[in-house]
Amino acid sequence: MNRSKPRHFASDNCSGIAPEAMAALVEANHYHAPSYGDDLWTERACDRIREIFEKDCDVYFTFTGTSANALSLAAMARSYHAVLCHERAHVEDHECAAPEFFSGGAKLVLLPGENGKLTPGVIEAEALRNRGDFHASKVRAVTITQPTEHGTLYQRNEIAAIGEACQKLGLNLHMDGARFSNAVVALGCQPADITWRAGVDLISFGLSKNGAAVGDTVVFFDRSLAVEFEYRLKQSGQLASKMRFLAAQYVGLLTGDAWLRHAAHANAMARRLADGICLLRGASVPHPVEVNFVIAALPQQAIDGLRARGWHFYNAFKSGEVRLACSWDTQTSDVDCFLADLKELIG
Amino acid sequence: MNRSKPRHFASDNCSGIAPEAMAALVEANHYHAPSYGDDLWTERACDRIREIFEKDCDVYFTFTGTSANALSLAAMARSYHAVLCHERAHVEDHECAAPEFFSGGAKLVLLPGENGKLTPGVIEAEALRNRGDFHASKVRAVTITQPTEHGTLYQRNEIAAIGEACQKLGLNLHMDGARFSNAVVALGCQPADITWRAGVDLISFGLSKNGAAVGDTVVFFDRSLAVEFEYRLKQSGQLASKMRFLAAQYVGLLTGDAWLRHAAHANAMARRLADGICLLRGASVPHPVEVNFVIAALPQQAIDGLRARGWHFYNAFKSGEVRLACSWDTQTSDVDCFLADLKELIG
Amino acid sequence: MNRSKPRHFASDNCSGIAPEAMAALVEANHYHAPSYGDDLWTERACDRIREIFEKDCDVYFTFTGTSANALSLAAMARSYHAVLCHERAHVEDHECAAPEFFSGGAKLVLLPGENGKLTPGVIEAEALRNRGDFHASKVRAVTITQPTEHGTLYQRNEIAAIGEACQKLGLNLHMDGARFSNAVVALGCQPADITWRAGVDLISFGLSKNGAAVGDTVVFFDRSLAVEFEYRLKQSGQLASKMRFLAAQYVGLLTGDAWLRHAAHANAMARRLADGICLLRGASVPHPVEVNFVIAALPQQAIDGLRARGWHFYNAFKSGEVRLACSWDTQTSDVDCFLADLKELIG
Amino acid sequence: MNRSKPRHFASDNCSGIAPEAMAALVEANHYHAPSYGDDLWTERACDRIREIFEKDCDVYFTFTGTSANALSLAAMARSYHAVLCHERAHVEDHECAAPEFFSGGAKLVLLPGENGKLTPGVIEAEALRNRGDFHASKVRAVTITQPTEHGTLYQRNEIAAIGEACQKLGLNLHMDGARFSNAVVALGCQPADITWRAGVDLISFGLSKNGAAVGDTVVFFDRSLAVEFEYRLKQSGQLASKMRFLAAQYVGLLTGDAWLRHAAHANAMARRLADGICLLRGASVPHPVEVNFVIAALPQQAIDGLRARGWHFYNAFKSGEVRLACSWDTQTSDVDCFLADLKELIG
Repeated sequence: MNRSKPRHFASDNCSGIAPEAMAALVEANHYHAPSYGDDLWTERACDRIREIFEKDCDVYFTFTGTSANALSLAAMARSYHAVLCHERAHVEDHECAAPEFFSGGAKLVLLPGENGKLTPGVIEAEALRNRGDFHASKVRAVTITQPTEHGTLYQRNEIAAIGEACQKLGLNLHMDGARFSNAVVALGCQPADITWRAGVDLISFGLSKNGAAVGDTVVFFDRSLAVEFEYRLKQSGQLASKMRFLAAQYVGLLTGDAWLRHAAHANAMARRLADGICLLRGASVPHPVEVNFVIAALPQQAIDGLRARGWHFYNAFKSGEVRLACSWDTQTSDVDCFLADLKELIG
Repeated sequence: MNRSKPRHFASDNCSGIAPEAMAALVEANHYHAPSYGDDLWTERACDRIREIFEKDCDVYFTFTGTSANALSLAAMARSYHAVLCHERAHVEDHECAAPEFFSGGAKLVLLPGENGKLTPGVIEAEALRNRGDFHASKVRAVTITQPTEHGTLYQRNEIAAIGEACQKLGLNLHMDGARFSNAVVALGCQPADITWRAGVDLISFGLSKNGAAVGDTVVFFDRSLAVEFEYRLKQSGQLASKMRFLAAQYVGLLTGDAWLRHAAHANAMARRLADGICLLRGASVPHPVEVNFVIAALPQQAIDGLRARGWHFYNAFKSGEVRLACSWDTQTSDVDCFLADLKELIG
Repeated sequence: MNRSKPRHFASDNCSGIAPEAMAALVEANHYHAPSYGDDLWTERACDRIREIFEKDCDVYFTFTGTSANALSLAAMARSYHAVLCHERAHVEDHECAAPEFFSGGAKLVLLPGENGKLTPGVIEAEALRNRGDFHASKVRAVTITQPTEHGTLYQRNEIAAIGEACQKLGLNLHMDGARFSNAVVALGCQPADITWRAGVDLISFGLSKNGAAVGDTVVFFDRSLAVEFEYRLKQSGQLASKMRFLAAQYVGLLTGDAWLRHAAHANAMARRLADGICLLRGASVPHPVEVNFVIAALPQQAIDGLRARGWHFYNAFKSGEVRLACSWDTQTSDVDCFLADLKELIG
Repeated sequence: MNRSKPRHFASDNCSGIAPEAMAALVEANHYHAPSYGDDLWTERACDRIREIFEKDCDVYFTFTGTSANALSLAAMARSYHAVLCHERAHVEDHECAAPEFFSGGAKLVLLPGENGKLTPGVIEAEALRNRGDFHASKVRAVTITQPTEHGTLYQRNEIAAIGEACQKLGLNLHMDGARFSNAVVALGCQPADITWRAGVDLISFGLSKNGAAVGDTVVFFDRSLAVEFEYRLKQSGQLASKMRFLAAQYVGLLTGDAWLRHAAHANAMARRLADGICLLRGASVPHPVEVNFVIAALPQQAIDGLRARGWHFYNAFKSGEVRLACSWDTQTSDVDCFLADLKELIG
């Protein structure tokens, strides 16, 4: 029997629309507004993002994190270029070759790294290995995910070191920030510190995993990369006609600290979950739990049992590992109920 | 001085979210739901679309009309194929080569036709002209817009004749139905009559111009064209993670007759506008006004004057022609106020 | 009965390898040589091309005129750009959407023009019509064919006027020079005069229609467009491993004046053919015959009769028009024999 | 000092045109012939290939091995598909993402395997791992190289086992046969035995490394994959206008046993080279030497010394490993001279 729960741990994109986003959506729904981003809500959202990043950056809305990433990569790399990424990066594993499609053939080069993180060393080794030979795609850019697919964080200095390596090698640096809010609040830093001040040229900054219904952004700190970007958006069907309804959600979440508050809550829920799991015999947490999800190693019979009791979650990288994602709306009761079930199953 | 109005005539995508869509959006915002379309709202929306079309068709959500069209064309045509369309078709004029991008190079072949409409004759002539020669793109499909970019309608028998020609020539037939609701209500027919019963293989069926905030659909009557379509959606960043919030709007609008009521209202507003314009000396309406917008030929000084008074609208195909679009939320007072201003300006 | 002739008038690519090309091919076939263009024959060919054009340009070999054109256009235009061309241009009519494929979706915008020629006026009008609107592909470049698909020539000043318009509009200018030799000799000018001195940024300069077996070149006068071009070549399978055998043919033909001599001969044969046709009642030559082929308007029964007697040639743009192409190896006896047959048939 | 040699060991594509190819080229150079493959030489070449493979297959000429591979992969896989290959496959390492470019984004999935060979086990594991999830590219095909990039051979039964796995999994199987002649003669089998009889659906069959100047072929045993392939060729600039000059070389080499004789000679030269190397202290041959090249592990100072003496060769996969390729025209004196130099350097 599959008894579904009101909230589960499958993904933070299974959660709903946060109140601040919904309120702004309703507020934006008055009268007519110019389409395709020429409206006041879009202007407000972009201004607020510039404020948050303390930088006069170029901001564009897309519909999904996948398209924000793929368009970012296409803005950096042409069809015969290569982009370096972690071997378990979302752009490689979960975007159905969107980067290759948007760029017309750019190659993702997969690099290893503990806890889902690249290091300047592997980047440099790969970049130099390829140089000067037109028989292989030319290395042109690097993309890192913050927080990573393993639920870990790049520290500020780790990003800065990568940024430095990129600058030395003449490579652009992109950040996949689908859960960027969770990283900011976990690190207790300014958004600028782990982006442009650390050498990041552009970021996919999404809130759909943090309370928005739909919409993502690409934020260009290096504005030269944004040249003609609106044509790319239009051509790829990523330009919202009624853009105010995407932008309003960002205004709602980014005004004040709702985005950070929601992220902090989700992070805390993951912490609570991880702490509970670690107490159980036969269960463990192989990676540091730094943001809002937990990779947990569980006995297969416990995994099966949890699913039989209606809990939704995904398998992680290895057999016997699952990913448990917390959201802005995850309740402590959800966590505790899950842990109670797990405890029973592990016995 | 540019005094903007609460509602104007620039585009039906400048209008807001209709109450039925908003109510469903709010209702869908409870608890968690599976992502990427595996939720009940998406199921309901697809079922309702199948009911409306009286056909067990495959239904997929995209984000925009542009992507619905481009993905439809890519599902029919490979990079070396050609798709025939009207020389003023939206796919040619207003989608920044999205069809070429999504298909990797398929060519739009532009055909003439009165009032924005193709005929079996021009289709057949072009298809046969190209045959058997691999030096030119191979004609593979036809796309028509219903209602057309000129605000006119294909009659049921006109579509059926095109459908028959396509079948004879072995071509697929796509319909760009960005304003399909307006066509259905104007023709007083069943959706099936002007789609699959007339030989249409797939349609881009959108409601964002009729009360939805965001989202479009591709409806495959010929289900063989939908093979692996979910991969296309994912790869092009057109697969909504929180799909329930797109689907809910469709459920809200399509349940009962809200979609037809809104469309009928917009059509009536355009009729009122056209009737008013025709009374004015020096103003005229060069094409039949059959749905929710009016192509109007106005003296240039009247055009300039209207804009100076804060009215928004776009230029149409020829110099001195403008397009005036009405929406589900256009008020008779908007129309009358506009006409009053125009009358004053024309004097 | 289809009695084929030793030489006919179908296309100058039906002719063989000229002696100078063959001799160089044989001469190049000694010992080993570095592959992919790092050999002395390629160096000699490129140097000779730089000499001919009196310019320190970047020269790359491709395999076909289609790929030379498509790669040129892709070097100028990204997927969301438009390239203006004549409505009967080879890139539009006979390359199966290769430009769209190589660029990932760039749009060819078709412009009218007498005798196959664009003018600054139509270019400017189209470029300005599109500007500033991301809903349509952004005009980025112009391509002209010299000599044109109609067998006519742009005069030096006509090209310069187009070049000037392009510069003013910020557009790149490409020349499809599949029969460039025929133009040079017909105009009696220096190659530089009708290319970079007139504002042409790059040219597809081919000899396969003038005595080479295989191979084409892209010559970049604006070397900034050639950045990373060798990657494009490799990625599109256009980089010859044994490049010396392509280059040697160019060395053979371009050393001395063989290329001009062959082109002059082909031009003269077309002149002789046109003169003969003009004498016949019911036959005419609708466009100036300026290079090596003739568009001839003939009675349909004469067209059929010629084919029945084994003559090969293609239909031209209009019904009743055929294209008769002369080559470096066309004999006066071929021309006279053809004319005699035609005279008999027209009788 | 870099003293170049008349023949060296860089690549078999540094060698010249074999006498049989050159003779046919000269013979084909009489009169006019229809262009684009509609000539008798092309017909003869295709017929001979059908004869060699004992199968009524579809045969198409391309210009390079890279394009033959990329077009083959594009014929099997759409943009959202994945193709499995060895992690050191030529398609991955040396084709600058041509498969991704030609297919519009298909992903190469890299699999490990000893001596450059895939096994049914790794194929099956990967194919099943990905199934049913549209977030990752859908596995659609497998490509293997015969002989491999390591100079090793798949035995007939190894290919058949892969073929069987592919059939079970519903995947197409492509063979990169850039040196297929060398494999056939080394295995002493019929071409059919290691291709279609073993489950191979199509092969890139090239002779440019075995005596041809230019040109490659794609041979479709599964003719359904060849549908509209001539359009692909044309669109990608891979359709030779004067195709007879490519085809004639194939006729020359494939008539009688020239292709097998040349391949056997090259294989023997590699054998002689490997045997000589194995006698030297500090030198070794890490992979079986089964065809015409040797991966040799040499002391770095010997590598440097050989290059200083004018020998050309490439580095192989690992530091300290080089690839020494033999050709149809490699002389025993070349081998012995190289070995003598190496012996001196290793001391």
